[in-house]
Amino acid sequence: MPTDKRLADRLVALEGLIRPKSIAIVGASSTPGKIGYSAVKNIQDSGYQGRLVPINPNDPEILGLKAYKSVLDVPGEIDAAVITVPARLVAQVADECGRKGVKGLIIITSGFSEIGRRELEEEVVRAATQHGTRVLGPNIVGILSNSDKLNASFAPFLPLPGKSSLVSQSGALLVAMCAATVVRYVGFDKLISVGNMADVDIADLTEWLDQDGATRCITLYIEGLRNGRRFIEAASRATKPIVAIKAGVSAHGAAAAASHTGSLAGAAKVYEAAFAQAGVVTATDLNNLFDRSLVLSLQPPMKGDNLFILTNGGGVGVLATDAAERFGLPLQFAPADIQAELRKHMPEYGSAKNPADLTGMAGKDMYYPTVRYLMSHPWVDGLVVLYCETSLTVPIEIAKTIKQAVDDSGFKDKPITASFVGGKDANEAMKWLMENGLPTYEVPDKAVNAIAALREYARIRSRITAYSSEAAPLQAEGARAVIGKARAEGREALNEVEAKAVFEAYGLPVTKTALARSEDEAAALARKTGFPVVLKIVSPDILHKSDAGGVKVDIKDEAGVRTAYKAIMAAAKAYKADAKIEGVAVQEMAPAGVEVILGSVNDPSFGPTIMFGLGGIFVEVLKDVTFRVAPVTAAQAERMLDEIQAAPILRGARGEKPRDRKALAAVLASYSAMIRDLEDEVGESDANPVLVYEDGRGLKIVDARIILKKK
Amino acid sequence: MPTDKRLADRLVALEGLIRPKSIAIVGASSTPGKIGYSAVKNIQDSGYQGRLVPINPNDPEILGLKAYKSVLDVPGEIDAAVITVPARLVAQVADECGRKGVKGLIIITSGFSEIGRRELEEEVVRAATQHGTRVLGPNIVGILSNSDKLNASFAPFLPLPGKSSLVSQSGALLVAMCAATVVRYVGFDKLISVGNMADVDIADLTEWLDQDGATRCITLYIEGLRNGRRFIEAASRATKPIVAIKAGVSAHGAAAAASHTGSLAGAAKVYEAAFAQAGVVTATDLNNLFDRSLVLSLQPPMKGDNLFILTNGGGVGVLATDAAERFGLPLQFAPADIQAELRKHMPEYGSAKNPADLTGMAGKDMYYPTVRYLMSHPWVDGLVVLYCETSLTVPIEIAKTIKQAVDDSGFKDKPITASFVGGKDANEAMKWLMENGLPTYEVPDKAVNAIAALREYARIRSRITAYSSEAAPLQAEGARAVIGKARAEGREALNEVEAKAVFEAYGLPVTKTALARSEDEAAALARKTGFPVVLKIVSPDILHKSDAGGVKVDIKDEAGVRTAYKAIMAAAKAYKADAKIEGVAVQEMAPAGVEVILGSVNDPSFGPTIMFGLGGIFVEVLKDVTFRVAPVTAAQAERMLDEIQAAPILRGARGEKPRDRKALAAVLASYSAMIRDLEDEVGESDANPVLVYEDGRGLKIVDARIILKKK
Repeated sequence: MPTDKRLADRLVALEGLIRPKSIAIVGASSTPGKIGYSAVKNIQDSGYQGRLVPINPNDPEILGLKAYKSVLDVPGEIDAAVITVPARLVAQVADECGRKGVKGLIIITSGFSEIGRRELEEEVVRAATQHGTRVLGPNIVGILSNSDKLNASFAPFLPLPGKSSLVSQSGALLVAMCAATVVRYVGFDKLISVGNMADVDIADLTEWLDQDGATRCITLYIEGLRNGRRFIEAASRATKPIVAIKAGVSAHGAAAAASHTGSLAGAAKVYEAAFAQAGVVTATDLNNLFDRSLVLSLQPPMKGDNLFILTNGGGVGVLATDAAERFGLPLQFAPADIQAELRKHMPEYGSAKNPADLTGMAGKDMYYPTVRYLMSHPWVDGLVVLYCETSLTVPIEIAKTIKQAVDDSGFKDKPITASFVGGKDANEAMKWLMENGLPTYEVPDKAVNAIAALREYARIRSRITAYSSEAAPLQAEGARAVIGKARAEGREALNEVEAKAVFEAYGLPVTKTALARSEDEAAALARKTGFPVVLKIVSPDILHKSDAGGVKVDIKDEAGVRTAYKAIMAAAKAYKADAKIEGVAVQEMAPAGVEVILGSVNDPSFGPTIMFGLGGIFVEVLKDVTFRVAPVTAAQAERMLDEIQAAPILRGARGEKPRDRKALAAVLASYSAMIRDLEDEVGESDANPVLVYEDGRGLKIVDARIILKKK
Repeated sequence: MPTDKRLADRLVALEGLIRPKSIAIVGASSTPGKIGYSAVKNIQDSGYQGRLVPINPNDPEILGLKAYKSVLDVPGEIDAAVITVPARLVAQVADECGRKGVKGLIIITSGFSEIGRRELEEEVVRAATQHGTRVLGPNIVGILSNSDKLNASFAPFLPLPGKSSLVSQSGALLVAMCAATVVRYVGFDKLISVGNMADVDIADLTEWLDQDGATRCITLYIEGLRNGRRFIEAASRATKPIVAIKAGVSAHGAAAAASHTGSLAGAAKVYEAAFAQAGVVTATDLNNLFDRSLVLSLQPPMKGDNLFILTNGGGVGVLATDAAERFGLPLQFAPADIQAELRKHMPEYGSAKNPADLTGMAGKDMYYPTVRYLMSHPWVDGLVVLYCETSLTVPIEIAKTIKQAVDDSGFKDKPITASFVGGKDANEAMKWLMENGLPTYEVPDKAVNAIAALREYARIRSRITAYSSEAAPLQAEGARAVIGKARAEGREALNEVEAKAVFEAYGLPVTKTALARSEDEAAALARKTGFPVVLKIVSPDILHKSDAGGVKVDIKDEAGVRTAYKAIMAAAKAYKADAKIEGVAVQEMAPAGVEVILGSVNDPSFGPTIMFGLGGIFVEVLKDVTFRVAPVTAAQAERMLDEIQAAPILRGARGEKPRDRKALAAVLASYSAMIRDLEDEVGESDANPVLVYEDGRGLKIVDARIILKKK
């Protein structure tokens, strides 16, 4: 079935679930205080225009509506069913709804996988999906929609209307955020609680909201994705801004890891990578989620870096300037023509440079011409207008003047945000501005952070390419045989020789390496490899080879090989008498280069995930690394090279020659394809060190490590 | 005069200025709209209980009060004079007030140094201070005080009452923040506008507020300190928490620098260092200043790292856990006894580990016993209580229960903060809690950030030592002679040999270095130094000596010295034909070690300021450095070693031996004493590289650089 058709089918089913023309409430009740009562009452109170049918085996009428014993008894079509019956009854109801042809179930009932009853939950999903019926939940608050006047939830009222829609994995937070919309003046069109995500997940809802006419920005509260790659796929194809907060990124309670890469791959790093690939704007905290959701739903992307700040107070101007640098939009002084024009509209002691300070004297007469001019000037890519409440001016008048100036400028594809610092009157003015499409904040930092979100959105959208969660198997002769042998021997780690063989099968530039089981064999292999060579112990019981005296480098002739072989064997025995010794690896000696490390982890949400960093101290002490969900293209990999703090080193810092970034990026891409191809087998892996040579001279993987996935 | 006496005198004068029993308004007016009218009206309206005397040469009565032509005509004492007359008249008024014995002037009038009229401002200060009268301003909003019911300002009303006092360098921001107190429910006792700080500065006010009975926390908005060391001195001796925001830390518009250290010493870095030494808690933005000011004025310091988080919603619990890690207080699971006790008060599916999730069922019956127990348990050093508004609970009841539980626990020296996420009812509950001494925030991150401020305060206070801005001159034979010689020759940079001579005079361990002006002299000096030696070009025109072929290392005998000498001379000529060559430095060759860099800048606000970082890439690429205002003790310097990201390297990362941190800290302390002693001469300096050896083996300064202060 072609992808487009499958997508279209998904969207139709979700349309019935989220915007139903008819709803059955299974478990409806006449008893106030019961969830089955609130479910009916809340839908009635919200002004829902569709058909509402209570289902209750005992009660023929509920809240003035005719009730039926079963959904199967209801005449006509039912799009969605809100389910509030006890957990043990849900599977049967799901089956009945499916037979009835209900498109989607909104399962409020809890008591499933969140308390360990995973099988019961799976039974419910099977019962519904066998009929093509989708399941939202279980364990959810419900769905709230302003544009459809529908409160199919146990939250007491609809949120303040807005142009963003929120999907939340936390029900309690959704209810609290719904109440908070009123006091923050930041509204939502829809609030959708996803609970246990047994079927419909955040990826599905992202797809659906992207084509929902009432939604301009998709706002996500994420605790953990089950199928991370599906989410990246859906988000990277979305045409609307998406802003997300990932909760649960602290190390508190996280498990220990077996490899370098594993120890560096916390949830924060992996989600950061995934969001970058998905084109998702991130929020740092709950306030920031509100702030960014607002601006992304009301203002266009900021297409260039030239931010202009206009203020009536030096203090807030300086704070905004600091914030601009902090949020990645450092100010530049404005060109002379802008300065000259602005100077016409301010007192002599004002400043026109950027930030432009109209001074505390600034009233409507100063704000109007300057805002209008700046909105229409091509140098300005985005505008932040600041206002400190003074005793000379009336906030609401300044607000209306700013809005008028923006409208009169005729520029609709250039973003503007504002900050009004003050008391009750300033608050009223802020509220008016937000109702009129101009996001306004109580402190200057927030107005700058908001416009930075619009810049971030434009930047990441210009960079991302649609991600596909599907991949065709690669040809990599011998790789699976090597792994199969280790599995057959009951091992979960490949030795260096094996790991390099797997790498080589995927075209990665490993140093020539072969296993010698005797001194004579070592000598023969060294001759074949060509001098100088390196000898390394191969033993599952010796992980830190150098510490054990198990590595000899720069061996120049056969006599040297024989001496080194004996020395290594003796050292290994001394280090650990009962170590199982598989032999000695004989390797070509790679010339010195800049040390980098590549690695991978198999993330529970996102699957194979690739890491890059500089080697040695940079990884071990500074933890200066970056991640991507595999696979990545060479172009994407090249951007990873610039994301670490130590990036200038590869570009040739301190008089060094630039390194072969192109070759490194290509290897990163191949590495990512390898771990994607072997995702059923490889748990973690490292190529460390990898030596990168001068531009045009490529790189060499000197040591390799693969830890198999537990099966 | 002993310090204590001078301090006491300062405090008495400021008491008259800030808490006057009698006030003259010079420039009082009967015309509404004039500042001289507002000044009188605002004091009357605020309920001021002292004596109020308008001064106006033409009007015998103003706003019902008898007016005088001059302050000299007023019978009885006048503590403070509010001055609103035009700038050109202020000096005369100041003189009259001084003659009258007025303790302090509150000069609202603008038009002084802020528009370049520095001399007029100095004249005013002279006129007042010659009589012992202090000057606040000019160019200020005024002083507002709730505890004295005094609004001596042109802000329209007093702020919401609170227990912090705010000192602001921005007048507009002070007026706007005053208005904002009402909508944020975060009050202040006093608001003091300091304007141009021609006389009374932030250090003075910090000293005074520290002994003010109505102030529990000192809140500072700082744009730039004139005498930074005086501020560090005052703040480091304060007994109350100080929270500050420094505005103007971006690089926008900052000047370029001549040395490594200079290029790394932005305002952000230097203020960060100064605040650490001053024991000042920092705020990241304006909201954060309100949030931290509130918590520091209401709650005790947090004495240990064990933070406990109690919640009724998993989502906010996870967000708070993430925030705890972000703000330096990562959570630990609670001991078994706590978990066992908490489990008694929550549903089975709750969690007692930390965060403890009472679940959405949590009402008063669950919050009360758990809060009371946690407040009294010795393991808990601080408690954050989270509440998500639900339809089952009433926010104000939860609020009162929490407060009751805290009170009933009897523990007053353990901090608690709260977050209520929700709508109008939650807001009312937050307000009630704040009025009752429990700082409460609208999102969990803020509640965690607030308690982290209390931990930060306890930590920095335990570390700082009272800073003295005074220093006795040191004995450093010959240092000033070397500098004098360079000055006499019209140079602003010392050469390496000279710089090392200065360093050596202060006991710093430089490599033995002498200047040879001929090949024979080089040979002789090398013999005297002992082989191996290093030869380096000495030329004011060749800054990058290695690039110019001007450095030869590891020279083992006299023949080598002669060859190297010729090669260096030839290379220097080839590099820059007209370079002025002073000779060749002959140096002992220091063994390899971990490279670090020490340096200094002479900051316009704080004077000599010392920098520390690891050498090479760490400084040049990662900019991984830390600063302190000089001088520092060896103990303080040792803490600097731990502040850089690369700190583990000196402790012996990756199997390396630990380095001689004690010796390095001692050298940092000596270096800081040197630049403090030479603050009138040294502009910037670097010791780079400095090689640090294994523990007990000290360090060597291999290259040195001093750039003199412009005179």
